[in-house]
Amino acid sequence: MPPFDFRITATAGAARSGVFSMPHGDVETPAFMPVGTHGAVRSLSVHDVAATGGRLLLSNAYHLYLRPGDDIVRALGGLHAFTRWRGPMLTDSGGFQVFSLAKYRVVTEHGVEFRSHLDGSLHDYTPERVMQIERNLGADVIMQLDELIAGGSEESASRAAMERSLRWLDRCQVEFDRLTREGRADGLLLAPVDGIVDVHPDDERVAPPQALFPIVQGGVNPTLRRESVRGILASGDWIGVAIGGLSVGESKPDMHATLEVCEPLMPSDRPRYLMGVGFPEDLVEGVRRGVDLFDCVAPNRMGRDGTAFTPDGKAQIKQAAFRTDRRPLVDGCACEACTHYDRAFLRHLFMSSEPLGQRLLAMHNIAFVIDVMAQARAAMHGGTFSAWSDAWLRRYHREAVVPVG
Amino acid sequence: MPPFDFRITATAGAARSGVFSMPHGDVETPAFMPVGTHGAVRSLSVHDVAATGGRLLLSNAYHLYLRPGDDIVRALGGLHAFTRWRGPMLTDSGGFQVFSLAKYRVVTEHGVEFRSHLDGSLHDYTPERVMQIERNLGADVIMQLDELIAGGSEESASRAAMERSLRWLDRCQVEFDRLTREGRADGLLLAPVDGIVDVHPDDERVAPPQALFPIVQGGVNPTLRRESVRGILASGDWIGVAIGGLSVGESKPDMHATLEVCEPLMPSDRPRYLMGVGFPEDLVEGVRRGVDLFDCVAPNRMGRDGTAFTPDGKAQIKQAAFRTDRRPLVDGCACEACTHYDRAFLRHLFMSSEPLGQRLLAMHNIAFVIDVMAQARAAMHGGTFSAWSDAWLRRYHREAVVPVG
Repeated sequence: MPPFDFRITATAGAARSGVFSMPHGDVETPAFMPVGTHGAVRSLSVHDVAATGGRLLLSNAYHLYLRPGDDIVRALGGLHAFTRWRGPMLTDSGGFQVFSLAKYRVVTEHGVEFRSHLDGSLHDYTPERVMQIERNLGADVIMQLDELIAGGSEESASRAAMERSLRWLDRCQVEFDRLTREGRADGLLLAPVDGIVDVHPDDERVAPPQALFPIVQGGVNPTLRRESVRGILASGDWIGVAIGGLSVGESKPDMHATLEVCEPLMPSDRPRYLMGVGFPEDLVEGVRRGVDLFDCVAPNRMGRDGTAFTPDGKAQIKQAAFRTDRRPLVDGCACEACTHYDRAFLRHLFMSSEPLGQRLLAMHNIAFVIDVMAQARAAMHGGTFSAWSDAWLRRYHREAVVPVG
Repeated sequence: MPPFDFRITATAGAARSGVFSMPHGDVETPAFMPVGTHGAVRSLSVHDVAATGGRLLLSNAYHLYLRPGDDIVRALGGLHAFTRWRGPMLTDSGGFQVFSLAKYRVVTEHGVEFRSHLDGSLHDYTPERVMQIERNLGADVIMQLDELIAGGSEESASRAAMERSLRWLDRCQVEFDRLTREGRADGLLLAPVDGIVDVHPDDERVAPPQALFPIVQGGVNPTLRRESVRGILASGDWIGVAIGGLSVGESKPDMHATLEVCEPLMPSDRPRYLMGVGFPEDLVEGVRRGVDLFDCVAPNRMGRDGTAFTPDGKAQIKQAAFRTDRRPLVDGCACEACTHYDRAFLRHLFMSSEPLGQRLLAMHNIAFVIDVMAQARAAMHGGTFSAWSDAWLRRYHREAVVPVG
């Protein structure tokens, strides 16, 4: 079996369930990827992440390039050995972070020059440099550098960024292929070993195979999105394809319509990754439109703020009604918050500013969206996906669900 | 076997090793108690605390009285059911917190009137009220209300507070006995059940037996300390005795001398608890002077600040030397930080302000002091305690150890 493989095992309209195999393991799709921006999911250990059901961990090239430095991560054996995450990983290129965090940036055809949000130091981020960084980090799946623009931009600006992203994809691919030929097998462990006492300097050091994913851009303009997909498919036989530039302020109907524009054009036998989308309802809507992979910091961030996902929508943990409520947060949820504590104690942790509360709600929210994806897979395999997703969305929203066209 | 029992199994000079049995379980002594001020050890779940080796958990009546309220905790089944800690617990009376946190307080013979540090509300804290609060919380061991004064006070003020603490002890005992006769078996579970799904409203609701501990006061004045111990022993047959008012700014020789004054006067067959002391070197010095139980927030607080205990003294996790250091923080330490991560990644977590770093170092520091106590017990049982404690202190301080007189 090749290092990367995608097998679809059930479908329902545009929705699909399958297994995406990578060098560090398999992931059942549709799947939600927990986000470990700096190499750790905020507040959670690798054991906590595994307990949520997370299998494919996302990390961020921009942050790790700035701190501790991709060269340091490489010297320490790569991202797997550094973070102790044993399963598959994906690194985002940092295109989004350059545009959202850097205080100063100049975008040219060459790349992005920006100042670090940490110390103001000047950096030159090019497609080639990004490939070198993501190669040093060693995730299973790595993302191209793309150009992002503000939501609601003029069509001409949107087109220019989409077309530049295609040209940058070509440069990423050339550099990626060069690095692959070069081997660079001197610093990366194929898999981390169990417990650092077992790490030996002479352990097998093999640069793991990586897959480069292109990113479809074009805002909410159907013409640009179609051109972007076609341009990407014309330039290579990609292991998977990502859709970027959504969940950046556009309306839900616009997001759904854009997915519906892209879906029929994308290869049906390759995983599709919708970037930066992670609210439960958006996941279900995305799965209905043929998406296989999702990531977002929202489940963790909302948990930190005391907001919990439930099958009946969001719940604020500090609400007075929970003061003496001995029931689990969500009945039947298998997460640590729901199996070991009750609403009254979880509320108390937040009222007392105890960090354990933030950790438990982060774990709950991540486990919740991962469980929604498991339900979606089971419904596809059981032939009930359409009814299941209608019912799930109706209960979550408590309002009429507009059928997918 | 009675609900409380203390068996000494080995001695070495004034030092002793034993087993303190309480309704919710046994604790091998000498022992360090992790502190869960608000019912949770900061950043840690009950599973994390158990993983550090913690067996006896301390919580605080002052904080829980103010939030969520001891009546609420009682209605939820008591502190064990509320927090899900299955082992023995101890509550401090909050005397120290009233004196250190409350913005306004007036101490009279009646008790302490203070304003909450949370909302400025006015509260009347008396020996009787404190017994009712600690009874509602339901810990195995509960502490008397005592009067604390600033370190370095005049002898007359120190004497007055010590004598008032004795009178308050009498009032605590009268109220404690009254509450015990009353039974109050309507709201407390003897032990929490495993997972909240198993909690049934009709579960056995028995108010667990509790032990009231007196607190020796008198600053660093030997005469006052002796009078305090004698007064306490004249007023009852206590299951255990605590020493308060130390580690509040006095010199180490003064702390050690005070312990040496109290030790020969205290019943040798009862556990002795040195309150608020938790630095590794202070624990070893305390054990050498006959102390059995310790508590302190310092291991957790220092961990949060990036300071780790090691056998060679304290280490700052952010030090540049750790940037590419793949070794465990402390070789051979069984905690999660040392068995699953390396110095480079722990440093990275702190440099990136990831809360996981604080949690891992809190776990490490608590596990470290608990392990030091396990080493002390093993040394006593092996007949090598004197040599072990000399060597341990010498290595930790890297300076000459003054023999205990």
